[in-house]
Amino acid sequence: MNVVLREVTDAHFPHPLPMRERITRVPQSKIREVANAGIGRKDILPLWFGEPDMPTPDFIIEAGKAALDARDTFYQPNAGIRPLRETIAAYMTGLYGQDFDADNIVISGSGMNALMVAAQCIIEPGDAVVTTAPSWPNLPAVQQILGAEVVTVPLEAQEKGWRLDLGRLFAACGANTRCLLLNSPNNPTGWMLTREEQQEILDFARARGIWIIADEVYARIVFDRPAAPSFAELMNEDDNILIVNSLSKSWAMTGWRLGWITAPRRFLGELEKMIEFNIACPPGFVQQAGITAIRDGEDFVAETVARYRAGGDYVYERLQEFPRVFLPKVNAAFYHFVRVDGVADSMDFAKRMVAERGVGIAPGIAFGPEGEGHFRLCFAQSRGLLEQAIDRMAPLLR
Amino acid sequence: MNVVLREVTDAHFPHPLPMRERITRVPQSKIREVANAGIGRKDILPLWFGEPDMPTPDFIIEAGKAALDARDTFYQPNAGIRPLRETIAAYMTGLYGQDFDADNIVISGSGMNALMVAAQCIIEPGDAVVTTAPSWPNLPAVQQILGAEVVTVPLEAQEKGWRLDLGRLFAACGANTRCLLLNSPNNPTGWMLTREEQQEILDFARARGIWIIADEVYARIVFDRPAAPSFAELMNEDDNILIVNSLSKSWAMTGWRLGWITAPRRFLGELEKMIEFNIACPPGFVQQAGITAIRDGEDFVAETVARYRAGGDYVYERLQEFPRVFLPKVNAAFYHFVRVDGVADSMDFAKRMVAERGVGIAPGIAFGPEGEGHFRLCFAQSRGLLEQAIDRMAPLLR
Repeated sequence: MNVVLREVTDAHFPHPLPMRERITRVPQSKIREVANAGIGRKDILPLWFGEPDMPTPDFIIEAGKAALDARDTFYQPNAGIRPLRETIAAYMTGLYGQDFDADNIVISGSGMNALMVAAQCIIEPGDAVVTTAPSWPNLPAVQQILGAEVVTVPLEAQEKGWRLDLGRLFAACGANTRCLLLNSPNNPTGWMLTREEQQEILDFARARGIWIIADEVYARIVFDRPAAPSFAELMNEDDNILIVNSLSKSWAMTGWRLGWITAPRRFLGELEKMIEFNIACPPGFVQQAGITAIRDGEDFVAETVARYRAGGDYVYERLQEFPRVFLPKVNAAFYHFVRVDGVADSMDFAKRMVAERGVGIAPGIAFGPEGEGHFRLCFAQSRGLLEQAIDRMAPLLR
Repeated sequence: MNVVLREVTDAHFPHPLPMRERITRVPQSKIREVANAGIGRKDILPLWFGEPDMPTPDFIIEAGKAALDARDTFYQPNAGIRPLRETIAAYMTGLYGQDFDADNIVISGSGMNALMVAAQCIIEPGDAVVTTAPSWPNLPAVQQILGAEVVTVPLEAQEKGWRLDLGRLFAACGANTRCLLLNSPNNPTGWMLTREEQQEILDFARARGIWIIADEVYARIVFDRPAAPSFAELMNEDDNILIVNSLSKSWAMTGWRLGWITAPRRFLGELEKMIEFNIACPPGFVQQAGITAIRDGEDFVAETVARYRAGGDYVYERLQEFPRVFLPKVNAAFYHFVRVDGVADSMDFAKRMVAERGVGIAPGIAFGPEGEGHFRLCFAQSRGLLEQAIDRMAPLLR
């Protein structure tokens, strides 16, 4: 018997959803709102999402397939498989000059998942979390879902790059501040903390008993050195710090959903437990592919970063043609966060760019009120596509 | 320069972790505690975990590999890929006789992930969640992490099976009860709600404005009909209900981490958002394998369930030999939850079973105080292994 689900009558709608009011107030993606304006059109040049244009390289794909052939289809340990944790510990040790071992590493189902798990470990409702803005919207969203108050400190755009006034960051920390949430290299701005700034922040956090969650998923996408300055160079075993990383950006593995947390060893047990209650574990065959990516992927990372750098430089130069346009130099990540004088409504501007010019960009307002008047463009794309995109965008930038 | 991370001195330890006290109080798996007692031993017969002994069947593996060959390695939509949502909607429609469409379905990274997402949508700190006991420990753990109070109503063991006194369930609901959390078919007991009981519960929940989260991951592991009674047969578009399902158990895909939520369509947007902030999406190639599993997997499900049934019947008959042992008949899931007269400390009993008899069982206390004096045994194993396991266990059951 096929019964049609009883239709909701107009009398019921619109009415507020019976879900938590707090989550209904977390905004849906404004990038998606722009993307929806282009649905069904095949001709749009997509610079709106934070995703490179290349699929995962063959040697990583083959590792995943080999693990499937070996029938790696059972549950795996909550902290991740030991060979992957050891591979990552060796990678972190080599990159940052401190001795990490497998007990410093917990595998997560993406950087996103790691950020949720990290926050669940730390944040009680009513705690304040201090972060920078403009910001990738998912960072404050996680805190809001868990009932935290999010306090933002604006980054400042200068010719030579974005910067953070540490005095303002520290002044924003009050009695109920539980955590500093720092995403460097930064989405959407490419802002990067220096080693000296990280030391100052760590000293402040130690003195005040404040946690640090460092989102370092763009650690390897940096154009003037092998890796961005990292809290992993400075942390001690008794610090209260969780560093989030991901295979997505540097190894072109966005779709695999694999990340990790680097932490003092005393937190291993709690992190392991929280991974269990969120996802249990990422697939074993995905973790096997992760081992190959990290062990054999350095040449790929180097080529990829060179390509991004060229794309970023090209777009930077081209955008200098337009007097209304201002963007700082960036040395990291794969975005330009661009101010356009005269644009008061970045959502309207982005939608017009899609509708009239066939170029997908992310509206600045998607990254918080501090982003209004801007747009974000992902330059992890082929030179040909970037050329065509700037040509098309030109009439709306003049 | 390789600097050894500063070792934590004895002066610092033991001290309470600076993480949320609430999460440090969520118990670690007591099944793992028993498993640790057997670490390094190859001879242990593993009946402790809720995992079938067979790898994922070839036709599903091939679908995953084909998607990797097609370079399905990019981000996917937060609600899941539309072809999988449509496939599942058709499957649910066929099984339960109501017209579901893709907007009733959201894809999650496992049943576990779906349970966390569902709870995040509903539970504010201080809310009460009413559930049954003994219970899979992850169900209350999620609620505790989110700050809810968990109220348990004991299931009762009878010759013909476990049962729930609905009067007690309803009496346990107070003014701050936000949600009924019901896992039927049940881990660890095999208890199953009847259709009439589900209707009564739904009527009660409607009248009282209480949510239902139905964990139905064992829906297809049922021995006397094609699927267990499901809230999916009864729900309307204006109910407050989220039904959690998973590919793990019926399609032998535990390691793939793929599940789904069936919900009234008005909740799609919020669920989609919460998946984004927890995991973004499961891998595309995993979702492609899921399409093949559900579309082409009915023969496999039927064979698998017949095998489990035979295993369950065999163990049930064998355990009748022991006068100290009592277990109800089960018609669903793949566990026996066994009482052994004279066993006051189920943890000690399970550790002895590992150490002295080489059989891995889960201690009843792992499923809450209501489970003390019991053990759980997973019978989703080959006949040969089950025979050997009962032979070995016999001296401790006499």
